[in-house]
Amino acid sequence: MRISELSRRSAVPTATIKFYLREGLLPPGRPTAATQAEYDETHIRRLRLIRALVGVRGLSVSAAKEVLDAVSSVKTDTHGLLGLVFGIWPASAARESGGPRVVGEPARPTGEADGTDDTSDTYAVDALVSAMGWQITEHSPARQAITQTLHTLRSLGVEYGWEDLLPYAELAARTAVLDLDQLEGQDDPLDKAERAVLLTFLLEPALLALRRLAQEAESAARHTD
Amino acid sequence: MRISELSRRSAVPTATIKFYLREGLLPPGRPTAATQAEYDETHIRRLRLIRALVGVRGLSVSAAKEVLDAVSSVKTDTHGLLGLVFGIWPASAARESGGPRVVGEPARPTGEADGTDDTSDTYAVDALVSAMGWQITEHSPARQAITQTLHTLRSLGVEYGWEDLLPYAELAARTAVLDLDQLEGQDDPLDKAERAVLLTFLLEPALLALRRLAQEAESAARHTD
Repeated sequence: MRISELSRRSAVPTATIKFYLREGLLPPGRPTAATQAEYDETHIRRLRLIRALVGVRGLSVSAAKEVLDAVSSVKTDTHGLLGLVFGIWPASAARESGGPRVVGEPARPTGEADGTDDTSDTYAVDALVSAMGWQITEHSPARQAITQTLHTLRSLGVEYGWEDLLPYAELAARTAVLDLDQLEGQDDPLDKAERAVLLTFLLEPALLALRRLAQEAESAARHTD
Repeated sequence: MRISELSRRSAVPTATIKFYLREGLLPPGRPTAATQAEYDETHIRRLRLIRALVGVRGLSVSAAKEVLDAVSSVKTDTHGLLGLVFGIWPASAARESGGPRVVGEPARPTGEADGTDDTSDTYAVDALVSAMGWQITEHSPARQAITQTLHTLRSLGVEYGWEDLLPYAELAARTAVLDLDQLEGQDDPLDKAERAVLLTFLLEPALLALRRLAQEAESAARHTD
C-alpha cells in the first residue's frame, strides 16, 4: 500500500508517519519510484506499537526508539532478548521513577543529615535481591529506582528498609510468573519480545490502578460496618 | 524560626518556599511583624512532603495541591479519609496512566474498527470489580485507567480481557493488605492519611521496579541452564 493508505488504515497522519520514518522508528517501505514506497501489514503493526509507546504510554520519541531498537536487535537466546526488554528503562520512565529532576533547584534535600547515604541504600537493594535469590544484572536501572525510593522515604522521616519491601518482592515474583506465562506459546523471538514490551509497559498503569482499587476495597472492609 | 532558617533546614530555596506559600501548598507561618512570620517543625515536614510529591514523584504543583488539600480536609471516619487518598489521581498521573495525550493529533487510532468500544471495556472493569467482590466508588479514576489499558491492548491486536487481569487483581488485593497493615498503629487520622499518601505514591515506582527485577529473575530461571 502507499503511504496515504497506510495513514488511512492506521489513523496516523502522513506527516507523522514521515517523521517516524526520518527518526528511524518505522522501517522504510520498499521503494517503487523515486518518491514512492510500498508499505505492508508489518508497518501498520509497528505504527500501532509506536502509538502505544508514544501516544498512550507517554514515552518520548527517543525513548520509544530505544525500546524498538532493543526489540529489533535479535539475540540468539530468549533470555538475552527478554532481559533486554525487561531492563529497558527509558529516560522518561526513569524520571517518573524518582530519578533526579532538576528544575532550577536541587531535587534532593541536602541540608539536614538523614542518617543515611546512597551507599547504604544500594546495599539494601543487594540484600533484597539476595534474600529473594534473584539473578539480576549489576547495573539494572530498576535497582536504582528502588535505591532512590528508600532514600526518599528515609529523608521524609519514614523508617523504611529493604525488609519492608520483602513481602512486596514476593508478590512481584508471583506477578512475574504471570507475565512470563503470558509469553509462552510465542515461538518467534521477535514476536515474544514485542509481546513482552506490550505487556510490560502497557500493563504498568493498569497494575497501579488495580492496587488503588484493592486499597479502597481493603479500606472499606476494615473501616466500615 | 524565620523563613531563612526554614530554607536552610529544609534545603528549599527561600524563593521556592514563598512560591509554595502563595500557591497555598504550604500553610502560612504565625505573623510576628508586617513582613515576618514564624515557622515551626510542621512546616519542615510539610515541605519535605511537597518535595517528595513535586520534586521526586514528578507531580505538577496543582496536582500536589490536590493531594495535600485532600489530606488536610479531615473526615470523621478513617475510611472517608483513606478513600480520598486512594482515589486521588492527579492530572499528571492520569496522563502517565494512559489518559488522552493529544499532541496535535488524535491520540487514539480511529481509522480501523477493532471490534470493541469503550462501553464494552467499561463493562469489563465492572465484571472484574464484581468478580473480586470489591466495594468501589462508581467514578474511581483507577477504573478508567484499566478501561483505557484494555482498549489500548485490543487496538494493538492483543487479545486481552478482564479475565486475564483477574490473577493480577488477586495479587493487588494481597498488596493492599500489606499497604493497609503499614498504616496500623497511626491513630491520628491526619498522620495516617499522610503516611498513606507517602506509601501509596512513593512506593509506586519501587513496585514497578520490583516487577522488572522479578521478570528478569524469572526469565533467567526459565531460559538459562
